[in-house]
Amino acid sequence: MAVGIGIAGAGTVGGTVVRRLVDERALVTTRTGLDLVVRRVVIRDPARLRSFSLPDGVVTTDVMDLVEDDSVDLIVELIGGLEPAGTLVLAALRAGKPVVTANKELVATRGPELVQAADEGGVSLRFEAAVGGGIPIIRPLTETLAGEKIDRVMGIVNGTTNFILTAMADTGSSFADALVEAQRRGFAEADPTADVSGADAAAKAAILASLAFGVWVGPTQVHREGIEAITATDLAAANRLGCTIKLLAVAEQTPHGVVARVHPAMVPKDHPLASIRGATNAIFIEGPSVGELLFAGPGAGGEATTTAVLGDVIDAARELLAGAQVAPRIRFGPGSAAPFDMVATRWCVRLEVEDSPGVLAQVAAAFGAAGVSIESVRQDGRGERATLLLVTHVAAESAQQDAVAALRSMPVVAEVSSTIRVVGES
Amino acid sequence: MAVGIGIAGAGTVGGTVVRRLVDERALVTTRTGLDLVVRRVVIRDPARLRSFSLPDGVVTTDVMDLVEDDSVDLIVELIGGLEPAGTLVLAALRAGKPVVTANKELVATRGPELVQAADEGGVSLRFEAAVGGGIPIIRPLTETLAGEKIDRVMGIVNGTTNFILTAMADTGSSFADALVEAQRRGFAEADPTADVSGADAAAKAAILASLAFGVWVGPTQVHREGIEAITATDLAAANRLGCTIKLLAVAEQTPHGVVARVHPAMVPKDHPLASIRGATNAIFIEGPSVGELLFAGPGAGGEATTTAVLGDVIDAARELLAGAQVAPRIRFGPGSAAPFDMVATRWCVRLEVEDSPGVLAQVAAAFGAAGVSIESVRQDGRGERATLLLVTHVAAESAQQDAVAALRSMPVVAEVSSTIRVVGES
Repeated sequence: MAVGIGIAGAGTVGGTVVRRLVDERALVTTRTGLDLVVRRVVIRDPARLRSFSLPDGVVTTDVMDLVEDDSVDLIVELIGGLEPAGTLVLAALRAGKPVVTANKELVATRGPELVQAADEGGVSLRFEAAVGGGIPIIRPLTETLAGEKIDRVMGIVNGTTNFILTAMADTGSSFADALVEAQRRGFAEADPTADVSGADAAAKAAILASLAFGVWVGPTQVHREGIEAITATDLAAANRLGCTIKLLAVAEQTPHGVVARVHPAMVPKDHPLASIRGATNAIFIEGPSVGELLFAGPGAGGEATTTAVLGDVIDAARELLAGAQVAPRIRFGPGSAAPFDMVATRWCVRLEVEDSPGVLAQVAAAFGAAGVSIESVRQDGRGERATLLLVTHVAAESAQQDAVAALRSMPVVAEVSSTIRVVGES
Repeated sequence: MAVGIGIAGAGTVGGTVVRRLVDERALVTTRTGLDLVVRRVVIRDPARLRSFSLPDGVVTTDVMDLVEDDSVDLIVELIGGLEPAGTLVLAALRAGKPVVTANKELVATRGPELVQAADEGGVSLRFEAAVGGGIPIIRPLTETLAGEKIDRVMGIVNGTTNFILTAMADTGSSFADALVEAQRRGFAEADPTADVSGADAAAKAAILASLAFGVWVGPTQVHREGIEAITATDLAAANRLGCTIKLLAVAEQTPHGVVARVHPAMVPKDHPLASIRGATNAIFIEGPSVGELLFAGPGAGGEATTTAVLGDVIDAARELLAGAQVAPRIRFGPGSAAPFDMVATRWCVRLEVEDSPGVLAQVAAAFGAAGVSIESVRQDGRGERATLLLVTHVAAESAQQDAVAALRSMPVVAEVSSTIRVVGES
């Protein structure tokens, strides 16, 4: 029995989805028994679709055609952004049409509303492609691990920033030069803000946190720091400590609640995340029974993301043909995200100080007064000034911040050059 | 609405499943909305279940009670082995009761029959725990990647042999000593045959091949070599080549058909599989669109495997409550496994030869005559004898075997000490 597919958006991913659904229709039928027919494609510039040789009447410019057209059973939203994607997805779900989307921003921002609309419509909302591109992560988290009390989800979920940080580590180049190289090679957009600011990673962290812990965490509740301020000197300092710098997304269950955060972190070179290079993504899931699970693969790209979308389409079509009301897979319990201050972190602090006796004692006293103990100190003298590279033990984020604030007000401290959290060691 | 669960087997995994279903019943309800009630537990020695404080009448010794008892909606088979597990699973599926199992031997051996019984009963058969313990792999392969034409699945799927090989590489110990250590630490059974012979890995390779390529591959169609013959000298030789030795399961689509195999292989140390140590499992999935996906985590253990079983139970219960006929997820098309000879491999061959001029030329000529080209040779002289360590380029498995057969018949070759395939480089 044929399942009519409506697709909104024909950009990098949308165009590939249309092409593969058309080109591989017979193959999908052989493998799954499903006949998936592209009935409607929404696209602003129909000229882009010429190469797909779609029949007349398939292409439209109005997203709501997908909801109103009775021949469309299942909707794939690949426009991106909050609107008109949000209006389309909510209307489709409420009308009882299952939705597959790769839209992390929409899912992260309006998650509970979308989940409720899916429940009302008795259909499923699937978004495997929203996090980790082609890496299966949403389904393992919500289905395979439904019986696990997850402790922590941590990973590299933005390929652009990982490409830039890998290039900086390999070549010693500046952030600005590495960004230009990433843009030249198609790994960063002309306006790279969403990636380098950590906003893209924060949306993904919000989704991972919400699914892992069953408590809604919105993107604004994710503590976010980007990589714009990371310098070649930071990477050289990380290297001296046996580390590299990665932009990490971390979602964890703390005694105070769920905390989600995105920030650059020093990662020891023997940690598996340190070896994730270029645009690859990798996500760890930790739980008391499963220990550590690692998922790694291409975090972006039209083809890989399309595979994730097609997997969702095939599952949604199968469910649709089974004809049952779909029981909700995603539920949010009471509770909310805890403040970032409550999380325990280790910091690496780089300071310019007066090179005179007793300075280290004063610096150490400032950490001690804030309740932070120091794990290691390296000192490089340079005439009147010395550079201190300190690594602390784990302490409350608020205590770390207090210690650094105290340092900033000390006469012997010329500059707090950088503070980067350290992840991956105890 | 309550879903009645019947569990057959209360060993390491079964006992943990019963305990977690009982102890975490309220938690599962909060997280999933499902009320999972343990109604029947089949166990030979009821004394083992004393600690679970199950109500009277729950424990039985007859597996068929699970099928006949109307209060049991869903059956979890954790007895292992072919019988009575096979009779139970087939009867349950045909009676319209979904089945969750961790039984790799049963699934690998009677796969098509089980899939057909599930179709007849209109219910699902789930076996996430059968491969990779707590690592989500079955679901990603059959669902998330349903839209991908997979090229190859390759990985470390047996924790016992990986523990032994890791110990041999770390300490230089013999296979026999490392096996004793693995047994002492609970990583190998008293009779380790199923693990060290590669039979356990072959069952898993058969399942992975069948699911990845949609063509039924039984365990007897998997080319299998164990690790019993691997020596400390082999590991030292691997080390000199910048490699380590792993027992790999490989399933790949070749121009001649699907080939599945399990054998020790030299893996370059910078390959991600080389860093998988101890009882950890790791599986790569390669496809034209997704590139390389890596899944890693605990390959065994009661708790991790139980999480995989519980994920399946929750999904099966959800499906059951939705009340629909379940559309089959697993389909086998025409075709069959291709002979192992057809696969292309690289070999590392260690030879004892006469240490005289012209010997290398004769050895090289034997490879050349078989159509195998040599990538590198290392020679160590020891008086009248020399040891040659040769690595070939990729050639047909049959050609490699022909070359080695020719070597064995050459007067200047005293011994072909070992042949180990090389994986992970081109």
